[in-house]
Order: sequence, then C-alpha cells, then structure tokens
Amino acid sequence: MNKLFITPASHFTRKCRVTIIELGLEANFEMIPTSWPHNWGTDTTPYREDFLSASPIARIPALLTEEGLRLADSSTICEYLNDELGNFRLCPQTGRERWEILSVVSIATHGLMEAQVLRRAEMLRKREGASSPQEFSGNFVRKMMDRQDRCYEYLDTICGDFREEPDLGQISVACACATSDFRFPEDDWRNPAPRLAKWYDKFAQRPSMQLTMQGETPR
Amino acid sequence: MNKLFITPASHFTRKCRVTIIELGLEANFEMIPTSWPHNWGTDTTPYREDFLSASPIARIPALLTEEGLRLADSSTICEYLNDELGNFRLCPQTGRERWEILSVVSIATHGLMEAQVLRRAEMLRKREGASSPQEFSGNFVRKMMDRQDRCYEYLDTICGDFREEPDLGQISVACACATSDFRFPEDDWRNPAPRLAKWYDKFAQRPSMQLTMQGETPR
Repeated sequence: MNKLFITPASHFTRKCRVTIIELGLEANFEMIPTSWPHNWGTDTTPYREDFLSASPIARIPALLTEEGLRLADSSTICEYLNDELGNFRLCPQTGRERWEILSVVSIATHGLMEAQVLRRAEMLRKREGASSPQEFSGNFVRKMMDRQDRCYEYLDTICGDFREEPDLGQISVACACATSDFRFPEDDWRNPAPRLAKWYDKFAQRPSMQLTMQGETPR
Repeated sequence: MNKLFITPASHFTRKCRVTIIELGLEANFEMIPTSWPHNWGTDTTPYREDFLSASPIARIPALLTEEGLRLADSSTICEYLNDELGNFRLCPQTGRERWEILSVVSIATHGLMEAQVLRRAEMLRKREGASSPQEFSGNFVRKMMDRQDRCYEYLDTICGDFREEPDLGQISVACACATSDFRFPEDDWRNPAPRLAKWYDKFAQRPSMQLTMQGETPR
C-alpha cells in the first residue's frame, strides 16, 4: 500500500488527494493523518517516526510508495500519480500541452499555495498565547498578498484556455482558490479575477473537491 | 532565444545554469540579471517589467521560452531542459530511476535549498540598518537548520547509490552543498555527512560547477 501523510487543512495535501480521486486510485493509498501544534510555523515540533522515515523534510504531503520511493512535495507526487499510475490522464507525457499544464501547476503551487502557507505561518507568530508576538512582520504578509494578487490576476487572463477535462494545473489552481476562501475569507480574490472565480465555482462542484473539503488540522 | 532570469547568489538559479551547461545548451539561453535590495525578504521590491511578464511570482529563476512558455520554479525548469531540450540525458523519461532522481531533486530543493533561502530571508530581518530587527525569529532559523541536518543525514545514506554520470538529483544536491559553504560557512555539514562531502568535493570540480560559482547579488 502507498502511504500518503496528510492533514485536513493542507492545500498541498489536498492537491494530491484530488489527483488520486480524479485518477480513481483511492484503493491504492492509505491516508495517514499528522498533527501539528500551533508553533509549527517557527519551531521543530515532534514528528511520528514513520513520517520522518517517509520524508527527512518532515513536511506534508509526503508519499512513501509500496516500492519504497520517497516523494516529498506535492508537484512531484502529482506527477508520479499521473505519469506512473494514471496513464497520463491529467497531463500528457510530452509536447506543448504538458509544459503549459506544468506551468500552471508551478504558478499555482509556488505563487499561490506557498504564499498562503508562508502567510499563515507568519500570522501564527502573533497568535493568542504566542511567546514572541513581536516577531510578526506585517510587511511579509503584505509581500505574500502582493504575490497572490499578481498570480490571481495572471491566472484570470489564462483560465479561458483551460482544457474541458480536468488536469494537474486546474487541480492546483482550484486547491489554491479554495484555500483563499478557507483560510483568508477576508481576501477578495474574486472581484479582480472574475473569469477565474467563475471557472473555480464550477470546478469546486466536482466530487474530488467535495470529498476533500479542508478542515482544521489536529494539534 | 530562451530568457532565464537569474542572480549570482541564487542556488535555485545555479541549479538551472548547471543543467544548461551539462546539457550543452548555453547557446540557446540568454541570462538576464535581476537585482534585489536587502529588504527582499519581507518587502515587495521593484521588479523589471520583462521579469514580471516572465513570472507573476516575481521570483528567480524564471524562464520565458522562445515559444512563450512561462516556467516559474527550478525543478520545473530543469525537467523542461532535460525532457524537451536535453533528450533525457540527466533523467530518464520513465521507470524507477526517473522517480529516484526526482525524489533526490525534491529533497535537495524543498528540504535543503528552500530551508537555506528561508533562513537567509529571516537573517536579513536583523541585518545592519534593518527597520524592524525585533521581527527576527531565532527559533525559525533553528527549525530550518534542523531540517537541513535531517536532509544532509538522509542524503549521506543514499549518495552511495548516485549514478556515475551526473543527473538532475546530483545537480540539486551539489548546488545545496555549495550554498552551505557560500552562505553559511559556520555550518558543519561535512562531519555529519562524510560520504556526501566526499562525493560533493569531486562533483564540485565539474566545469558546470566551476563556471557558475555563487557571488553576491546586486542590490
């Protein structure tokens, strides 16, 4: 059995879970929950032994395959799922379309999802009960929001070219949009990106998205 | 001409440049320098227009290909170089060896290189002349160092299986090791990872590494 280490809040994890469902691979994967105390943003927290042995990074998602492969980030995991187990149904093996899809994966993952998690980690520095709230940087949060704004604006200009059928790029974008709604409901990403919002509201109805709604991570 | 946006200090950039040289593709790429004031860690800084149009993330490396593809992170760029322009010479198209190499890429990139750049950004919060040095978190730096330690220890156990010829995984690991020496010379990564250190000292002699030595980024 392939073991995927997850949490309910993680958009990176959700990206992998949606991919597994879209490819019909649920039966091949055991989902192993991890817990994260609220000081995860700044501190090394205790990790389960099996999690550490799946990934020395100690970050989710981490995939340990039945063959003993360790894949330690969502994009590599999704590519493995698509290429090795999914017969390239969510991204073709070669050609321009592959790179257009992987370009969208990259911008959604490193532009939106990474900015979202870094912003969340920064916010946790000033959480209730934090021991060092003075370490919070409002500028850093704004920098991450500026990055998100630029990426939403860009994706709004290209989402009209998304394929009819789902792909790895669309899954990444949808998990990022969902995280803005889940974690930063005060953000208005829809007004500056109306075409993307319309596309997302439809994509969010897919069973793969409905079955993986985000929730708070156990501490 | 393909345009790659770079800086001399960036290990993510170097990973792409080493890959280009190993594949003999130098003539197809224009290297476009970017500059970064010392507040880049926390602030949105001014970006060149052509850089922003290559990547809405506004992070290096960014690749804009002659066909207009935008690739926005080092792993996607290196995979494109290898798969599309390099005839799979640094990573086979299919099979177990591909995923073993991409596993090493992932751990070196997200475990070491990302920890290094996040640690550097954190250190810059308390640089000389910083406006808000109280925002520096020593715990966060230790968390990143713990992550690096785990990854170096892990890579030390697997580097004996590296192929004779260079590949994308080895290039990623070498650029991370080099960055420990360049940016964090006070770190002792060699003693806990003696086999990796021996492997690295040999790999570092390759022309591709010698031609891409890191230097300070223009502000």
